Amino acid sequence: MKTWFKVSENSDFTIYNIPFGIFSTPTSKKKVGIAIGDAVLDLSVVYDLGLFKQLSFSKTIFESDFLNDFISLGKSITKKVRTIIQDELCNENSVLKSSKEAFVLQKDVEMHLPVKVGDYTDFYSSIEHATNVGVMFRDPENALLPNWKHIPVGYHGRASSIMVSGKNIHRPKGQVLKLNETLPVFEPSARVDFELEMGFIIGKQTEVGDSISTEKAEDYIFGKVLFNDWSARDIQKWEYVPLGPFLAKNFASSISPWVVTLEALEPFRIAGPEQTPKVLPYLEYNGLKNFDINLEVSISPNNSEETVVSNSNFKYMYWNMSQQLAHHTSNGCNVNVGDLLASGTISGKSKDSYGSMLELSWAGKNPIKLNNGEERKFIEDYDTVIIRGYCKKDDIRVGFGEVKAQILPSK
Amino acid sequence: MKTWFKVSENSDFTIYNIPFGIFSTPTSKKKVGIAIGDAVLDLSVVYDLGLFKQLSFSKTIFESDFLNDFISLGKSITKKVRTIIQDELCNENSVLKSSKEAFVLQKDVEMHLPVKVGDYTDFYSSIEHATNVGVMFRDPENALLPNWKHIPVGYHGRASSIMVSGKNIHRPKGQVLKLNETLPVFEPSARVDFELEMGFIIGKQTEVGDSISTEKAEDYIFGKVLFNDWSARDIQKWEYVPLGPFLAKNFASSISPWVVTLEALEPFRIAGPEQTPKVLPYLEYNGLKNFDINLEVSISPNNSEETVVSNSNFKYMYWNMSQQLAHHTSNGCNVNVGDLLASGTISGKSKDSYGSMLELSWAGKNPIKLNNGEERKFIEDYDTVIIRGYCKKDDIRVGFGEVKAQILPSK
Repeated sequence: MKTWFKVSENSDFTIYNIPFGIFSTPTSKKKVGIAIGDAVLDLSVVYDLGLFKQLSFSKTIFESDFLNDFISLGKSITKKVRTIIQDELCNENSVLKSSKEAFVLQKDVEMHLPVKVGDYTDFYSSIEHATNVGVMFRDPENALLPNWKHIPVGYHGRASSIMVSGKNIHRPKGQVLKLNETLPVFEPSARVDFELEMGFIIGKQTEVGDSISTEKAEDYIFGKVLFNDWSARDIQKWEYVPLGPFLAKNFASSISPWVVTLEALEPFRIAGPEQTPKVLPYLEYNGLKNFDINLEVSISPNNSEETVVSNSNFKYMYWNMSQQLAHHTSNGCNVNVGDLLASGTISGKSKDSYGSMLELSWAGKNPIKLNNGEERKFIEDYDTVIIRGYCKKDDIRVGFGEVKAQILPSK
Repeated sequence: MKTWFKVSENSDFTIYNIPFGIFSTPTSKKKVGIAIGDAVLDLSVVYDLGLFKQLSFSKTIFESDFLNDFISLGKSITKKVRTIIQDELCNENSVLKSSKEAFVLQKDVEMHLPVKVGDYTDFYSSIEHATNVGVMFRDPENALLPNWKHIPVGYHGRASSIMVSGKNIHRPKGQVLKLNETLPVFEPSARVDFELEMGFIIGKQTEVGDSISTEKAEDYIFGKVLFNDWSARDIQKWEYVPLGPFLAKNFASSISPWVVTLEALEPFRIAGPEQTPKVLPYLEYNGLKNFDINLEVSISPNNSEETVVSNSNFKYMYWNMSQQLAHHTSNGCNVNVGDLLASGTISGKSKDSYGSMLELSWAGKNPIKLNNGEERKFIEDYDTVIIRGYCKKDDIRVGFGEVKAQILPSK
């Protein structure tokens, strides 16, 4: 595919991508757009130009605060919308070429939360991450708990505090039990951490009692985003037994603004790791269900030079998205359009591919060196954490942009 | 207060109550109503009669699918709506007396989910329940985990599968590790259980970063409901480490349709249990923050005679709602109107006041006898579980109605 729109060589937002998001300008309300190169293409303008007239839906779909209504049209429509946009951006005679209103520079828009998240689930599906945590906190000889290779372990997270990239976050306060103490104190967390994750967004609802098979699962997945599951390790350690993480996580999670569709990721399918022991039949799957997505995490202290602290890849996931969704609905739990299912921390095998400071600094024992000479065990006030991700194969590049947020002092 | 409306002596829905709910008739869409005696008072009709004209809000507030918009008006308005209704129901000259459209019999309406739940949190705040579970599954000598008396332990639950009373539920399937086996199987749960809980509904939103003090907490609570946090104990046992319950709970939760306001519960305030050791300052509180609410659970096998299997009381809660909400927001986690915060299983000290079959049958060791001669360790197919609750003091009775659901065989 060759577009007439100027897209720089390393842009995440190539003609092969066409990710969807919610943007506003200083003079407009929230609207649906797609990212191309350095610009946003305003789909309400494309609608007015009549380019979607063969698809019978209302313009209000593109004048919404969230993508949910658009996604709810179903893949038969949303795939066509994406293809029409690609065709127009390749068609030298497209009316878009002369439309002054259709394109806005990304630097001139504000991006918003792309979907209204009904329920948010976080998995724990990287074997390297689960093993690292097990070695640190439990038993190095039995790092993985007995259920881990049978179940894509997951838990429910907080939907209300999911925020779009760029929204800064106050360091949470919470109960912490200090070393050699028997009584907890309430104070700002000293161990704020990022978790390098990706999330996928549900594109089709089910009813209570329904299950989704691994074979059909991708029909229910609209697309993917970058996700930072902010965590306060000291709060987590004290609170998490027996019912799991709560205040250690629900103060904030950050999401990238552009939702990359599963169709855009098609060229980057790859085999997942071998699963031994054999999984139960409802978790078996055929075909390539993992995706080769390069991921990196940077820290920028006080808006100064960034240091890349981790290079990971989504392909390391032990449990794939289809298995996660099949498991999630195996008991009849229903899903709704806009629900977010996150991967859990994505760590690779090597030490520089770990997806959290907890692992990178090995619980604070081995501080990470930053380019400015400082060291980090965990995230400090005024540090900005940036996660980026992209796929590349031959000449095809599809990227996610970034999700970033700065940690501010406690309120 | 004396109403001209006929209310039978043991009605939950007295003039002192006036709970809000969402109802429809065979010929109407969903609307907001209040319960009085055996009837529903249609608030859209009351609006048309001009009785709320001093409060400037639109009639669409009462033509909504959920109470969220009504609740969002704020307590300054919702309290006045309730008082106006009480006054009219006591005023012998009220226009309501001659309105043919205002009242519908409860038996002629369908009740719906009262609120659109954004996020649902479940606590674990009964010391008797937490102790019973600890004795059964961990160490009788150290039944409570070290954090329990410092933290109102809670976790996030699934909002999508919360359903109104009367919706029946298929027995969930899931992974179970059987005794003396090393590999799990996937099959219908053999240990479906109820959890006797109450929930409270958030009436006022906060922004990310805000905290709510125990002193202000009740300003953010609209009202309360009965809640059955259905659980599959065998699935839970295998899946819950280390991140807490997931598929063992998210197949369904049942909620009563009428939301009883905090104002209606005012006469039933009572002191909570002494909290030793002393709680951290952000969890300290003044005044009476517990409520004396009688609770009972019945089982009806295959629609036959009910057997009351538990008599408990909300007053047993170790952690009160104000503490739960202060804790939940102490890290800056935001809340939205319609969010549901549930108590956790409410068990009393005596064996007949335990709030789950797990405790009542002591993990299946001591089956419960039903009136029809059958025994129950857990809930069987076609059993209906009914939770009821009411407050009574002198001549004032305020009740919650019931939440019930039947367990159907696995799909």
